[in-house]
Amino acid sequence: MTLRQAQGPGQAQGPSTALLTDRYELTMIDAALRDGTADRPCVFELFGRRLPGARRFGVVAGTGRLLEALRDFRFGDDELRYLRDNGVVSAQTLSFLEGYRFAGTIRGYREGELYFPGSPILTVEGSFAEAVILETIALSILNHDSAIANAAARMSIAAGDRPLSEMGSRRAAEHSAVAAARAAYIAGFGATSNLEAGRTWGIPTMGTAAHAWTLLHDTEEEAFRSQVEALGAQTTLLIDTYDIRTGVETAVRVAGTSLGGVRIDSGDLPTVAAEVRAQLDRLGATGTRITVTSDLDEFAIAALAASPVDAYGVGTSVVTGSGAPTAGMVYKLVARQDAAGGWVAVAKASTDKASTGGRKAAFRTLEHGTATSELIAVSDGFESIDTPAEHPDARPLQVTLVDHGEADPAFAGPAGVAQARAHHARVREELPITALALSRSDPALPTVYVDAAR
Amino acid sequence: MTLRQAQGPGQAQGPSTALLTDRYELTMIDAALRDGTADRPCVFELFGRRLPGARRFGVVAGTGRLLEALRDFRFGDDELRYLRDNGVVSAQTLSFLEGYRFAGTIRGYREGELYFPGSPILTVEGSFAEAVILETIALSILNHDSAIANAAARMSIAAGDRPLSEMGSRRAAEHSAVAAARAAYIAGFGATSNLEAGRTWGIPTMGTAAHAWTLLHDTEEEAFRSQVEALGAQTTLLIDTYDIRTGVETAVRVAGTSLGGVRIDSGDLPTVAAEVRAQLDRLGATGTRITVTSDLDEFAIAALAASPVDAYGVGTSVVTGSGAPTAGMVYKLVARQDAAGGWVAVAKASTDKASTGGRKAAFRTLEHGTATSELIAVSDGFESIDTPAEHPDARPLQVTLVDHGEADPAFAGPAGVAQARAHHARVREELPITALALSRSDPALPTVYVDAAR
Repeated sequence: MTLRQAQGPGQAQGPSTALLTDRYELTMIDAALRDGTADRPCVFELFGRRLPGARRFGVVAGTGRLLEALRDFRFGDDELRYLRDNGVVSAQTLSFLEGYRFAGTIRGYREGELYFPGSPILTVEGSFAEAVILETIALSILNHDSAIANAAARMSIAAGDRPLSEMGSRRAAEHSAVAAARAAYIAGFGATSNLEAGRTWGIPTMGTAAHAWTLLHDTEEEAFRSQVEALGAQTTLLIDTYDIRTGVETAVRVAGTSLGGVRIDSGDLPTVAAEVRAQLDRLGATGTRITVTSDLDEFAIAALAASPVDAYGVGTSVVTGSGAPTAGMVYKLVARQDAAGGWVAVAKASTDKASTGGRKAAFRTLEHGTATSELIAVSDGFESIDTPAEHPDARPLQVTLVDHGEADPAFAGPAGVAQARAHHARVREELPITALALSRSDPALPTVYVDAAR
Repeated sequence: MTLRQAQGPGQAQGPSTALLTDRYELTMIDAALRDGTADRPCVFELFGRRLPGARRFGVVAGTGRLLEALRDFRFGDDELRYLRDNGVVSAQTLSFLEGYRFAGTIRGYREGELYFPGSPILTVEGSFAEAVILETIALSILNHDSAIANAAARMSIAAGDRPLSEMGSRRAAEHSAVAAARAAYIAGFGATSNLEAGRTWGIPTMGTAAHAWTLLHDTEEEAFRSQVEALGAQTTLLIDTYDIRTGVETAVRVAGTSLGGVRIDSGDLPTVAAEVRAQLDRLGATGTRITVTSDLDEFAIAALAASPVDAYGVGTSVVTGSGAPTAGMVYKLVARQDAAGGWVAVAKASTDKASTGGRKAAFRTLEHGTATSELIAVSDGFESIDTPAEHPDARPLQVTLVDHGEADPAFAGPAGVAQARAHHARVREELPITALALSRSDPALPTVYVDAAR
């Protein structure tokens, strides 16, 4: 019987995630178990030194996925055999790993929350061994998902009230595609083409037809007729396989003026969209919607604001973070107990990668509902950190995600995604107007460090 | 009993990959089953219109992973229930999907092979329904893995004989990280930090220690001493947590002059590497190797060619494709039978996304062992395509990957990875010297289309 099977239902539910880990985490545990430091109480922090792509705000995403990965982070027979057969760690460490289950506490930003340079997105408290081992899995998930959410939020801002669909699965690795659909949905997209994202995370799925559909048939008209017969006149017809003008005419002739929509996937979109809209209107199809899908990013979407476009489908740019494919967050030891049991704030000294030691809590200060700063209270001890007295109305940004090993189920599964999406929409309303510009700039809010009240 | 369990051993081995698919593939099948075109014999082609990042060559990677995904591409009870409950497709289509198993033929470039614009990287032959459904999974895997392999190959060229390790898992989504380690290894990296990549694909794993290791201890000396005691003097010590000069001195004092290596993760690397080398030599540690790991990409590696660096560790840039995170390949219908059973070459007409219709085979012409062109023979029928008579020595680039549903096991698993790595090293030797430059440019080889011999 494997360790995983022994946990019973309600515990691990998927394949083990434990080897999605950099080797050095295990060799550090190996050495720490020998020298007695493995048990030292530690505080690790996950944060970004800067925002991806010199943007004005960051968006936290992946938290719910991390909690599920943590649930499945167990070393079963297969994982232990690989480590033993390859001499990665000693027998003592194998024994530690066999019994490993994260029993510490993780506080962090809600999924969908905004963040800024230095924001303590996760604060992981536990022994050195139990906390250091989560470095790779935590960073992998949050760096990827937050990068996507950041790009998606900018596109969502640029799109305004027009619906956005994510359809970039083919331009992302197959499992990243599912995570990307999820992150984009949290950050304001309304649907995805990815069926697994629909099944796993409850995200609405959508789709039209490919050029292959038209090319499969002997004529465009046959292809349209078949699609309308199968899916109804409310379907969306792809009109640019051959000549767009002919495509529109054929579409309306076949489907009637109640045709749901047409999709344009090529050409100079502002020009083409205007022409197609005029042609549809002339043909009486005034209610037929225009979806555009050709290599859109936040800038192209913004440039279409005055065009008669009803919906956007975004592929490559959202799943690759629109130029910033990783959020660049890091996972650092910021405090630990010393041999005498006192707390020590620690930080690397290198000038180009400096960080701020000490356990932290974060608050967003607001004036008349608009955010004014990211307030980070730094403690040199381990007591709980209160809202700074000078800012009694500041909004606390961290919640307890995992309490002594028990993950809060509210953040998991489709319900967690829905909650994160709602939270993101809410907190985005707090941003100052300057934060909504798309150009590269400094963060929209200053990060202010204060000493935690004693 | 689920469909998957019913297949018996040797068939599906992992979770179903069938929903890693865009919804429109299934709705097209829905409509095609109604109108009778679902069974039309078709040829789909996976190719890139251009090379990622205006580079001089592309590298095919992911093929072995695709074959494994194909093995697990089945619609079991869970997948069918999701589709039924969400009204994605009709009952007729659910029934088709329940029995789905790809029974067609896939010819394609070997994994590790170079490619150029228009190269027919995969040629997928089957009925419309059985072939169109593979669009997303095939593109997801090849677009991601080839983008990583392309960046990795350039880094490998820049590094010359110095070993390269991939350590970017934390900057990629957790499963992409494993695929990235695999692609980088195929393209010339020697090791990865990712343990799952070691387990699944047989890639050598490596690791040193994090700054957290030093910060955990009361002094740097204690950290170094503990690491050397646990891992031996051949270990690599991270020397830049505090002052580098002191770090080097402490490292040699603790480990002796037989210290295996030091790692530098910050600072101006050419300057710092030279200083560290001089200091190590003064201290008598002339055999101690220097590994550098701070935000390297192919350009930074090239800039260190004259520096006393012994090994490179590359993170973010390799797992994100160094500015080109997706290869931008597409999957297009290029030929099909018409109602009368004749073959028709098809292609989208849009001027900005045009492609070449017809079934193809590809050959690399060589002169004195150096590649001179990517020769693509285009057929308007379905007979096998011979090497063009004018180029009898041209190297055929496609092999049969899947023959009537049966994947060639030689391309799967760790053995497939080893073979791909060897193949890549071999074919890279054929590149003209101009192809090795790192600057943006045109493809190193022209793509030449010829009519297939009749």
